[in-house]
Amino acid sequence: MPIQVTTGSREYFPGIGKIKYEGADSDNPLAFKYYDENRVIAGKSMKDHFRFAIAYWHSFCGNGGDPFGPAGTIDLPWDEASDPMQSARDKLDAAFEFITKLGAGFYCFHDRDIAPAGSTAAESEKNLKTLVELAKKKQAASGVNLLWGTANVFTHARYMNGAATNPDFHVIPQVAAQVKAAIDATIELGGDNYVFWGGREGYYSLLNTDMKRELDHLGMFLQKARDYGRKAGFKGTFLIEPKPMEPTKHQYDFDSATVIGFLNKYGLQDDFKINIENNHATLAGHSFAHEVQTACDAGLLGSLDVNQGDPHNGWDTDEFMHDLHECTSLMLVLLQNGGIGKGGMNFDAKRRRSSTDAEDLFIAHISSMDSLARGLIIADNVLQKSNYLKMKKERYASYDSGNGKAFESGKLDLETLAKMADEIGEPKQISGKQELYEAILNQYIR
Amino acid sequence: MPIQVTTGSREYFPGIGKIKYEGADSDNPLAFKYYDENRVIAGKSMKDHFRFAIAYWHSFCGNGGDPFGPAGTIDLPWDEASDPMQSARDKLDAAFEFITKLGAGFYCFHDRDIAPAGSTAAESEKNLKTLVELAKKKQAASGVNLLWGTANVFTHARYMNGAATNPDFHVIPQVAAQVKAAIDATIELGGDNYVFWGGREGYYSLLNTDMKRELDHLGMFLQKARDYGRKAGFKGTFLIEPKPMEPTKHQYDFDSATVIGFLNKYGLQDDFKINIENNHATLAGHSFAHEVQTACDAGLLGSLDVNQGDPHNGWDTDEFMHDLHECTSLMLVLLQNGGIGKGGMNFDAKRRRSSTDAEDLFIAHISSMDSLARGLIIADNVLQKSNYLKMKKERYASYDSGNGKAFESGKLDLETLAKMADEIGEPKQISGKQELYEAILNQYIR
Amino acid sequence: MPIQVTTGSREYFPGIGKIKYEGADSDNPLAFKYYDENRVIAGKSMKDHFRFAIAYWHSFCGNGGDPFGPAGTIDLPWDEASDPMQSARDKLDAAFEFITKLGAGFYCFHDRDIAPAGSTAAESEKNLKTLVELAKKKQAASGVNLLWGTANVFTHARYMNGAATNPDFHVIPQVAAQVKAAIDATIELGGDNYVFWGGREGYYSLLNTDMKRELDHLGMFLQKARDYGRKAGFKGTFLIEPKPMEPTKHQYDFDSATVIGFLNKYGLQDDFKINIENNHATLAGHSFAHEVQTACDAGLLGSLDVNQGDPHNGWDTDEFMHDLHECTSLMLVLLQNGGIGKGGMNFDAKRRRSSTDAEDLFIAHISSMDSLARGLIIADNVLQKSNYLKMKKERYASYDSGNGKAFESGKLDLETLAKMADEIGEPKQISGKQELYEAILNQYIR
Amino acid sequence: MPIQVTTGSREYFPGIGKIKYEGADSDNPLAFKYYDENRVIAGKSMKDHFRFAIAYWHSFCGNGGDPFGPAGTIDLPWDEASDPMQSARDKLDAAFEFITKLGAGFYCFHDRDIAPAGSTAAESEKNLKTLVELAKKKQAASGVNLLWGTANVFTHARYMNGAATNPDFHVIPQVAAQVKAAIDATIELGGDNYVFWGGREGYYSLLNTDMKRELDHLGMFLQKARDYGRKAGFKGTFLIEPKPMEPTKHQYDFDSATVIGFLNKYGLQDDFKINIENNHATLAGHSFAHEVQTACDAGLLGSLDVNQGDPHNGWDTDEFMHDLHECTSLMLVLLQNGGIGKGGMNFDAKRRRSSTDAEDLFIAHISSMDSLARGLIIADNVLQKSNYLKMKKERYASYDSGNGKAFESGKLDLETLAKMADEIGEPKQISGKQELYEAILNQYIR
Repeated sequence: MPIQVTTGSREYFPGIGKIKYEGADSDNPLAFKYYDENRVIAGKSMKDHFRFAIAYWHSFCGNGGDPFGPAGTIDLPWDEASDPMQSARDKLDAAFEFITKLGAGFYCFHDRDIAPAGSTAAESEKNLKTLVELAKKKQAASGVNLLWGTANVFTHARYMNGAATNPDFHVIPQVAAQVKAAIDATIELGGDNYVFWGGREGYYSLLNTDMKRELDHLGMFLQKARDYGRKAGFKGTFLIEPKPMEPTKHQYDFDSATVIGFLNKYGLQDDFKINIENNHATLAGHSFAHEVQTACDAGLLGSLDVNQGDPHNGWDTDEFMHDLHECTSLMLVLLQNGGIGKGGMNFDAKRRRSSTDAEDLFIAHISSMDSLARGLIIADNVLQKSNYLKMKKERYASYDSGNGKAFESGKLDLETLAKMADEIGEPKQISGKQELYEAILNQYIR
Repeated sequence: MPIQVTTGSREYFPGIGKIKYEGADSDNPLAFKYYDENRVIAGKSMKDHFRFAIAYWHSFCGNGGDPFGPAGTIDLPWDEASDPMQSARDKLDAAFEFITKLGAGFYCFHDRDIAPAGSTAAESEKNLKTLVELAKKKQAASGVNLLWGTANVFTHARYMNGAATNPDFHVIPQVAAQVKAAIDATIELGGDNYVFWGGREGYYSLLNTDMKRELDHLGMFLQKARDYGRKAGFKGTFLIEPKPMEPTKHQYDFDSATVIGFLNKYGLQDDFKINIENNHATLAGHSFAHEVQTACDAGLLGSLDVNQGDPHNGWDTDEFMHDLHECTSLMLVLLQNGGIGKGGMNFDAKRRRSSTDAEDLFIAHISSMDSLARGLIIADNVLQKSNYLKMKKERYASYDSGNGKAFESGKLDLETLAKMADEIGEPKQISGKQELYEAILNQYIR
Repeated sequence: MPIQVTTGSREYFPGIGKIKYEGADSDNPLAFKYYDENRVIAGKSMKDHFRFAIAYWHSFCGNGGDPFGPAGTIDLPWDEASDPMQSARDKLDAAFEFITKLGAGFYCFHDRDIAPAGSTAAESEKNLKTLVELAKKKQAASGVNLLWGTANVFTHARYMNGAATNPDFHVIPQVAAQVKAAIDATIELGGDNYVFWGGREGYYSLLNTDMKRELDHLGMFLQKARDYGRKAGFKGTFLIEPKPMEPTKHQYDFDSATVIGFLNKYGLQDDFKINIENNHATLAGHSFAHEVQTACDAGLLGSLDVNQGDPHNGWDTDEFMHDLHECTSLMLVLLQNGGIGKGGMNFDAKRRRSSTDAEDLFIAHISSMDSLARGLIIADNVLQKSNYLKMKKERYASYDSGNGKAFESGKLDLETLAKMADEIGEPKQISGKQELYEAILNQYIR
Repeated sequence: MPIQVTTGSREYFPGIGKIKYEGADSDNPLAFKYYDENRVIAGKSMKDHFRFAIAYWHSFCGNGGDPFGPAGTIDLPWDEASDPMQSARDKLDAAFEFITKLGAGFYCFHDRDIAPAGSTAAESEKNLKTLVELAKKKQAASGVNLLWGTANVFTHARYMNGAATNPDFHVIPQVAAQVKAAIDATIELGGDNYVFWGGREGYYSLLNTDMKRELDHLGMFLQKARDYGRKAGFKGTFLIEPKPMEPTKHQYDFDSATVIGFLNKYGLQDDFKINIENNHATLAGHSFAHEVQTACDAGLLGSLDVNQGDPHNGWDTDEFMHDLHECTSLMLVLLQNGGIGKGGMNFDAKRRRSSTDAEDLFIAHISSMDSLARGLIIADNVLQKSNYLKMKKERYASYDSGNGKAFESGKLDLETLAKMADEIGEPKQISGKQELYEAILNQYIR
């Protein structure tokens, strides 16, 4: 079903209607220039390639605050009611208005984004359920779906030393209560995935930390969460989102490779996949494409948090992804590896602190959706029209037959290989031709 | 057997005799102030705690060259003969003179460090065997042992696109020939370990790279090398040395966690362990202590390359480790996790380009050995005399009994845990006391 | 006058009295082991070497908040009154209790730390004046002095695009009102310095920024502030505190060298000096010692913010400085360059988010004061007892006479110098002996 | 005069003729798609916008060597003669063949790139003069000009502790001899600029360094070099090329701001400008655009070394600049600030170690020239067709009249400004609209 613009009793973004596709020559910043949701590329509509999702926290809770200005700069007109439950309802209205005007098919949330904590776990769960019922109606009315839900177990002071990895067991039940309720909410809303981001699962100092015991606790907790989810009927994918640091000095889910090892160690690999964020990748010293390829190669690519960092800043700046080279590199990996599946592209990105106009929220998302759409078009052209794939395949052709194939299939032992050295002699020098590959990509960035 | 000073026909370090322990009040830069090899700490002699090894390449092949001055600065008087085999013999004399005067019990080498390449693989192997026989005699005469051997499959132009991960199969036999010969050499010399450092096993650009296929080739190659080694009688440990980048843009053996996952994936975990280098750890965004703890927790700590990087430079500076905080943190991890075993501490460190006096090679090693000895003494004092261990254990005490223990052993499911949230109520806030831990360490750095 | 413990009507740190010096063998974490304020080193008491100052914001306003947990973790019992002016008075009581129990001689504040903003600039100024009068009495009663005051022109939303560099002139008067009032407060309290930290003086994107015009505005504003201060009777030093980034993507006062150039360009060099922070130095790619030396060489060292960062994290972690190598390196520079003068060492450092015990605030400060005291003792020993100074001087001895001296004094032109090349011939190689220098420092870290 | 293909007796790049402009739809990697040298943009031909120069060292001396493979990978067929002077002549042939086939108008060299060192300074100078005479003829025959010359005073072992900043005066005459001869060569060849890159002018350790004295020596040396150059008839610009580190731990010419301060301090600002390299900028924590803007604002932009680094590697990777966002950002700054003047764009870039085909050298340069040409076209479109300039100007409009103008011209003192705060009241919030600016740029990247 196409997305229906769905407002509440108050319109929070007056003057802005449904964002339309106007093509590359449009000068209208509130129109798509490349993202044309029904356009088919490589056999699939753009909508299905991307499964764009709006992040509830950044777009509807974020106030532009930063460590040197926590009170923020951005006006949130839906956050004016004195009753937090009323604010939550108003925020839901605003969220669906924005999501549907933008035409995104999905959204994502933490429990605390959509409903306020109560004074007890039970009350918090009750609040969440109330809002989930409202959200369910909004989903039905609008055609918007839930990409994933999650529990915020990093903001509250009680998680300062960790959530599932807290040295004090008494914190674990609090985590369990939130995670259980958030899984329930995700099931109720038909979410395709459920995410774990371990913002406090790491350490500030190794000196006071028993890393092994903490990781064992984390593995155990995730097993129990998985078991519960499956028992409760969750058919989707559990996701772990790697990040190397921040807020902790060192976070356990450092990067894709680390998470893959962790999932295998704790027997989670059949139920969990990886949710990769660009800015987290770069903080870990990797490119986004590298992290995505690594997850694909392990059969564990789950979903993406699309954003970009600042190459000269060492923290998570969560900017809207608009670098065309990075968008192209990402889409090249996805097109060659079967795409995003039941995952999606969640905008874990925030407008800059001083982008305070209401329209800025639209402009930022539109610009990023257009950039990713261009990345898709460019990557598809590279794969279809250029020598790219042929060149890449030929690089490895010596393993497709003869001794190379025998080696690849394990039929040559070290002695046999060693004997070949002087038989074959010095191998011919073969250029890696990196600059040519780069030039081909540039040729199609048009 | 105690180390015997062993010179060849020419003395290469005249005026410097066996380095002695003179104690902390000595002003002699050519004496140990803390490293007293037979002093027993925590039930083991210093010699056995460290198993110090000298890196053949830095100390006897390194000329002070850098990318902006490859011709170097450091005079290598053993490298004057016109015949490369004579140079190799002279270098061996110089190496054992240095190692034995310093009193290190071990050394490490690449095939090309101790013997020159020939014009064929067979000739290269012959050269290596010749030098290995000489080295064997030197070992016997001096009491010095081989910590590990390895093959240099990164310097030669043929490895520019990778060694075992080369896109061209024709390179693989060359790797095999070198690795087989180097394993043979290691066996012949009674080496405790055999190392793989994949300097070219990675990529410069993901665009032209089939990462999965390359990693499969690497896994296959290591299996074959392992099989050969075991068949040939190698009883020691195979080691992989992680490094995240340099010379490649991205190296496959990024860090300990990545290597652990790789070893498990390719069934190598029973024969391989990890050789961790401080400067490689820091380039990957980790502390040395973190990487060592990670390997210990997986039961895969193999050996160490001790050095330190510059926190403001982004390449492998390979400085001699002398930071007392880092030495202490390292020894705290080792003392709490059973020590270095059959691994050792190899000085993968080079004096600075302008440290051109012959004595500088001694001073640099002595300073580092003393620093590590101090780290051991300090760490032992912290563990024995302070509240450190008690504080750390108490942090996790809630998991030693009751519900915490039940959780840890998998007896509590998510629903049960969630129900406890309101029963137990908000957990008491417990300070992590990081500054106190840090103050305790400082107290013992004396 | 010795510092008198000065509490208000409520004791906020019960159970903790005046911190005493107990010596290196004490196990008491609430005692000094090295900082003995009247001990004379290099002709000056420790108290005068350091002029330690407590940062009002971190220690009395900081709640342990971070971007993923802005609500914080740390209980501030002085912040319970519903009336913000009463809270401010209570906070002042708590601050002087802490400062005097610790025995620090100085403190530092932003206007908004000690008094709440009002609804107008006039009301804000009135609030500030009220608290300043109270602070003045506290100073008199306790013997504590003001190291510096400053205005917080970065937290309020109106400064999101800059304070004195705001593209909108209408923001400038707000800055002026705050700065004028803060200068007045500093004069009233006898502050030795007045600081400018330009947290928002920089840019998020160069695309929308006229950097030259913004810098001209900054230069103009500082001239006017200086003129006002001098007219109003301020005899102390104006300070600029460099930081390369955070909160902005790029901050104008990047590092010492940048600030020195700026001060000279705008004719501020006779009234302004530099306030250097270690963690800001490292974010800019420098060591603390480098930045301090750079300022000293320009005659512009003003004061220090002592803390340390995490070498693996890319943001301002503001940890308490306790690295003995860094403390020693710092004190070596200061002892060789005449010391801190009328500046001081302000603890721009915060306990970790999970260091939530009241005593942790004491432990953190004590540990850092002890570490710096050790740095002083070690550095003095290096300078007095070792060959350090002699070695360093001899490195440059060729410039003390003959042609070297002639060159240094400008008497040799290029042609004359060039002619000497073959006359003098190839210079003798002289080792830089870096490892020996490092070993000497380590020898004295005891 | 148009560039004439100029070969020597042997053709070193057979099969490759003059590179032609074929337009954006060409699939020929050996043709220009965007760089059309006579196309006029913003009133100037592309040729004059860029003044592209080929770097002699990377393109004709570089062998693909790196710290882990110094012997290199790239065949240099002009480097086969046993007589180094003959090699130098052959290299000159190859260089002019390449430069003219590519159609670049300029080249740059170090003394040692074009002529080998002799056994004395006099002999080195003689060698240089011989090659300069040959190069002069090549220039005349081809129409290629010299953008700048320089002296390599960082590769030789004698410069290990610095060149003009060496602690030993006896090194200074060697530097002087090289610099004098290189200035003479630059004059003889009609070079527009003369460059100083201080690869060893910095330190490995601050411990053994008298930074102030070293900088004074550097200032003195540059004054003498300037005086000599002017006396000898050099009418061009002296350039300093900033780099923050590598090969030294810390280089004195850290970044543009540091160099600007240095030039002013030593009275060099009327003769010297700055030569900015992208990869050096990023190593210093800046964007290329920032560094160029900084130099422009000081009136000190001299010339550019165009290349790009790897955002995940911490050393100077010197890749060919092909990032379209960076090319556009650079050209936006240049177009708004009057362009490159008598400077140029020197390709201080090297093909990757494994780009070993002769054609790769062409492909890499062509790709970069096309990327920069696109950056120019895009930037010009942004400036001509979009609201970009208008938006940017309006951001600062409040300073163009009234009180804003009065402030800017110094007519409002602090008290007057402060009084306005409540008169004017809280300023209206004005969005910085960063995402809109970014979207506009993306719109024109076509």
